[in-house]
Amino acid sequence: RSGEMAKLTQLLDNEAFRAYATYATIVLLKMMLMSLITAYFRITRKAFVNPEDTASFGKGESAKKYLRTDPDVERVRRGHLNDLENIVPFFGIGLLYALSGPELSTALLHFRIFTGARILHTLAYLIPLPQPSRGLSWAVAYAVTISMAYKVLKTSFYL
Amino acid sequence: RSGEMAKLTQLLDNEAFRAYATYATIVLLKMMLMSLITAYFRITRKAFVNPEDTASFGKGESAKKYLRTDPDVERVRRGHLNDLENIVPFFGIGLLYALSGPELSTALLHFRIFTGARILHTLAYLIPLPQPSRGLSWAVAYAVTISMAYKVLKTSFYL
Amino acid sequence: RSGEMAKLTQLLDNEAFRAYATYATIVLLKMMLMSLITAYFRITRKAFVNPEDTASFGKGESAKKYLRTDPDVERVRRGHLNDLENIVPFFGIGLLYALSGPELSTALLHFRIFTGARILHTLAYLIPLPQPSRGLSWAVAYAVTISMAYKVLKTSFYL
Repeated sequence: RSGEMAKLTQLLDNEAFRAYATYATIVLLKMMLMSLITAYFRITRKAFVNPEDTASFGKGESAKKYLRTDPDVERVRRGHLNDLENIVPFFGIGLLYALSGPELSTALLHFRIFTGARILHTLAYLIPLPQPSRGLSWAVAYAVTISMAYKVLKTSFYL
Repeated sequence: RSGEMAKLTQLLDNEAFRAYATYATIVLLKMMLMSLITAYFRITRKAFVNPEDTASFGKGESAKKYLRTDPDVERVRRGHLNDLENIVPFFGIGLLYALSGPELSTALLHFRIFTGARILHTLAYLIPLPQPSRGLSWAVAYAVTISMAYKVLKTSFYL
Repeated sequence: RSGEMAKLTQLLDNEAFRAYATYATIVLLKMMLMSLITAYFRITRKAFVNPEDTASFGKGESAKKYLRTDPDVERVRRGHLNDLENIVPFFGIGLLYALSGPELSTALLHFRIFTGARILHTLAYLIPLPQPSRGLSWAVAYAVTISMAYKVLKTSFYL
């Protein structure tokens, strides 16, 4: 059993894979943060979607008025969905890329640019910054994922 | 080739990784179940979103009236999206956690609490149970994921 | 270090795992394509959701009229969300399945049917084709994922 354990841990001895584990965890945590920001805006703006969430504000009509949409809540939710649409492919393609034996420096470059671009994307969405800040940060992270996908397909192509 | 196969299968000989594979599959299946529940409510409530889905109900205005939102359908869809927002980070961070060589008992504790909390979350959302049932089950699963992320970063940190 | 690298690359020497890496990358790229199609329809239909996205069309009321929903944009977005709901489980369960030592021919059958079905699903959603094209292609991909989940649980069950 200790032999197997060693083998598993070896995966995390590989520096490119460790870098992947670190950056993938950071962007997934960043995505999870969007839930907290949504909750913060729902509570401060008093804008809920489920009747059971407004029960503490009283009964009947007095609680019903908090069942409404709020522009700030909707903005965070759009940022959250955009994270799902882009961080899921990064996680999946990035994992296969990290297993495809990339140069450490090249791998770090991909992971760092993606992570930086997605943090900028969130800032550009939430502040919000004027365009094309959000569009550009989205496109940079997208291009990094495409570049990793190209390496995965080049290394492992088997249709 | 049989040597490689053996090595691959060894990953699933590791008990913490097997536990991860089991619980990750269970929560992903639970998430997939939301699609079936959505379809069930769309059909029984006759509430569709695509015109081509109502063609069997007749033509023109008689079919158009089924292009509408229904509170039960929307509730399941919110539960489904919440699953995506929380089960995706569990899958990703949990995979890296399972590869970071955790104690089997600690790993099992994380996986079991997360899975139980997310099943409770779905029940609390769909029945629905009064708050804070849904909020608490969400928070417990969230905290488990954060705890695994901490272990991953402690083990593999490489910026 | 070169010994570890060799071990990592061995994962991609396994043919079933290489097939998984190829098909998983293809369906993730297909999912990413939905972002580009959404952007294309938003720009050609002039239908935006963020005020900062319409700033280039002028100020005040002249720009505000482009903050609207468009049926084509909404259709692509529904297809994108459906991809997330179905391709995420395929990626996760498929990864564990590829590690569970499946027969190469059986694995290829699963990956090919899933990928074909999801491409058909996108075509059926976007053209759109009359039902049950979209429903059937969804169900076939769903069944493939369930079949892989069964194999994972049979191989690695550890509650």
